[in-house]
Amino acid sequence: MSIPNILLIGTGGVGTIVACGIVYNKKATVSVVTRSDYEKVIEEGWEIKSVDYGHLKGWKPDHIYPTVDAAGASGTIYDYVIITTKNLPDVIKPEDVAAPAITPGKTTVVLIQNGFDLGRPFIAKYPNNYCLSGVSHIGSHNHGGIINQTQNDKCLISYFDNPNFSKDDQEAKAKEFVEIYSNDKNTISYFPDVKWYRYRKLVYNATLNTTCALTRVDSGRLLMSGTLEAVSVPAMREVIKVAKADGVELPEDVINSVVHSDDGDWFKPSMLVDVEKGNPIELEVILGNLLVVARELNVETPVLDILYNLLKATQFKLKEGRGLFAVPTERPENTGHYA
Amino acid sequence: MSIPNILLIGTGGVGTIVACGIVYNKKATVSVVTRSDYEKVIEEGWEIKSVDYGHLKGWKPDHIYPTVDAAGASGTIYDYVIITTKNLPDVIKPEDVAAPAITPGKTTVVLIQNGFDLGRPFIAKYPNNYCLSGVSHIGSHNHGGIINQTQNDKCLISYFDNPNFSKDDQEAKAKEFVEIYSNDKNTISYFPDVKWYRYRKLVYNATLNTTCALTRVDSGRLLMSGTLEAVSVPAMREVIKVAKADGVELPEDVINSVVHSDDGDWFKPSMLVDVEKGNPIELEVILGNLLVVARELNVETPVLDILYNLLKATQFKLKEGRGLFAVPTERPENTGHYA
Repeated sequence: MSIPNILLIGTGGVGTIVACGIVYNKKATVSVVTRSDYEKVIEEGWEIKSVDYGHLKGWKPDHIYPTVDAAGASGTIYDYVIITTKNLPDVIKPEDVAAPAITPGKTTVVLIQNGFDLGRPFIAKYPNNYCLSGVSHIGSHNHGGIINQTQNDKCLISYFDNPNFSKDDQEAKAKEFVEIYSNDKNTISYFPDVKWYRYRKLVYNATLNTTCALTRVDSGRLLMSGTLEAVSVPAMREVIKVAKADGVELPEDVINSVVHSDDGDWFKPSMLVDVEKGNPIELEVILGNLLVVARELNVETPVLDILYNLLKATQFKLKEGRGLFAVPTERPENTGHYA
Repeated sequence: MSIPNILLIGTGGVGTIVACGIVYNKKATVSVVTRSDYEKVIEEGWEIKSVDYGHLKGWKPDHIYPTVDAAGASGTIYDYVIITTKNLPDVIKPEDVAAPAITPGKTTVVLIQNGFDLGRPFIAKYPNNYCLSGVSHIGSHNHGGIINQTQNDKCLISYFDNPNFSKDDQEAKAKEFVEIYSNDKNTISYFPDVKWYRYRKLVYNATLNTTCALTRVDSGRLLMSGTLEAVSVPAMREVIKVAKADGVELPEDVINSVVHSDDGDWFKPSMLVDVEKGNPIELEVILGNLLVVARELNVETPVLDILYNLLKATQFKLKEGRGLFAVPTERPENTGHYA
């Protein structure tokens, strides 16, 4: 039996090290899709400064493609498609981006991305494919094709529950992927409860991260200004309420842990960093998807709703700034009636 | 009987034209306090390009002081103290700033400033002084001591109700001031219901203005992103609810009028302009004072509460940016417990 074919989409700081780990492990053929760095890396390969794998120059996986279309047109049937791009469904839907490389009933999708309930659109579009979850705790950045990994690649693998498969089969598939990815340098493990873990992350990301992004202050100043206690903490209580209605019981002291998690640092959460760089924010997967679930479960989330709706304006401006659309010079007529 | 002594504090775009109008009118002796432009104007006077008064060079009122202390130390008893500074009680309280020039039981205070319920701290501190309200609709800016007035000085004068005076006496005092200020160039009139008028302004300022300041988009983009309808309009309903509980009935179509008031323009409301310039915002007088009244009247304002508490973080950063305080290099320990 031949080793599995893997395609990884998104060679940022996280994705490149994931690919690097699988290549190092020699249990799969690894192809990658790299968009902005393609011309450079097809010639020279990557330079990778890694706490896990040392200083690599001219590193290359088995195949490099400039687009998913090209990767699909190669004729390879992929056993795994790993997606490590940012997840911005309001800009481009990852389940559509990956489509040319996904064989229905065959390819296992692995989403190593931030956010909540990421499997839903994949399972809807590919009901007979497994969909795995990876939550990465790596510290790694891509500066113009040079990867600088400063923290160990630690990743928790689980599955987004697809009712067309048994839990046992999905767990086995997740563990199979851990086997392919895990090596003596990285720290990859199977985690049984993806929902619990992603809710736990939301207690920070849907509340403190969003509030900092909106107000443009770090978490230390958010505390000192009183806004953390007045807005973020009530928002955290709402996340816990949604989780509970969804059958997930978070630890009793979770709010206290989350508030104290940045103690000692004037820490800028990821969404604030994106806003400051002018990057579109992962609003939909971090907050939008949570609110979809809240509505389905009839849980009221007044604070989170407002944060989401305010950040829609922030996102509008970020997307406009990146040229994703343009507004006309003359402001369009508003024919609405408001009461 | 000699003509009244007037001191005007704050020679920005609005204040200088107010002073100019009263000087032009010749019914009072006019002193002004000017801080940042003092050295220049004590020598050269002001240059004023005014749609009302023409192009004036070397314009000076009767007296120019660098501080209120100096104006008070002159020995003059002021019949009126007009305050035309920005109103930032969380930075410096106007009732304290003006104190050296206010004679209890004698000086009438005139607040030509944005915001809501501005009279309260003055009436508490000077219970035996009249406190008048001016709502200005002028277009006028100060660029380094050169005043550029592009829109007619239109001002509505009323009084902040002081229970120690009869309504008739307060109305008479307001009309006396209109008489001193009004001339053949400007458009100054007595408006009987200050509360109604200032609530009406809040339907825009506490909602659309605040939301734009927070999200950093103009009112056109706020509409297009959906945030206006999802956040600002519900906030407007809360302002109307507070007004109603306070005995003020706003027009039935007020929300529709306010939403459409910027039609045709990618308009940046004043608070957004302040945020972009790094100026502290008039958060307390535009939104904070409204919430104080809402609490007194037991009206719930969940949307306005969140906007206010989010803008506290924005204001924190603006004040820090202006050097009004500094945070320590090391983030202070947080000993709080959160649940």
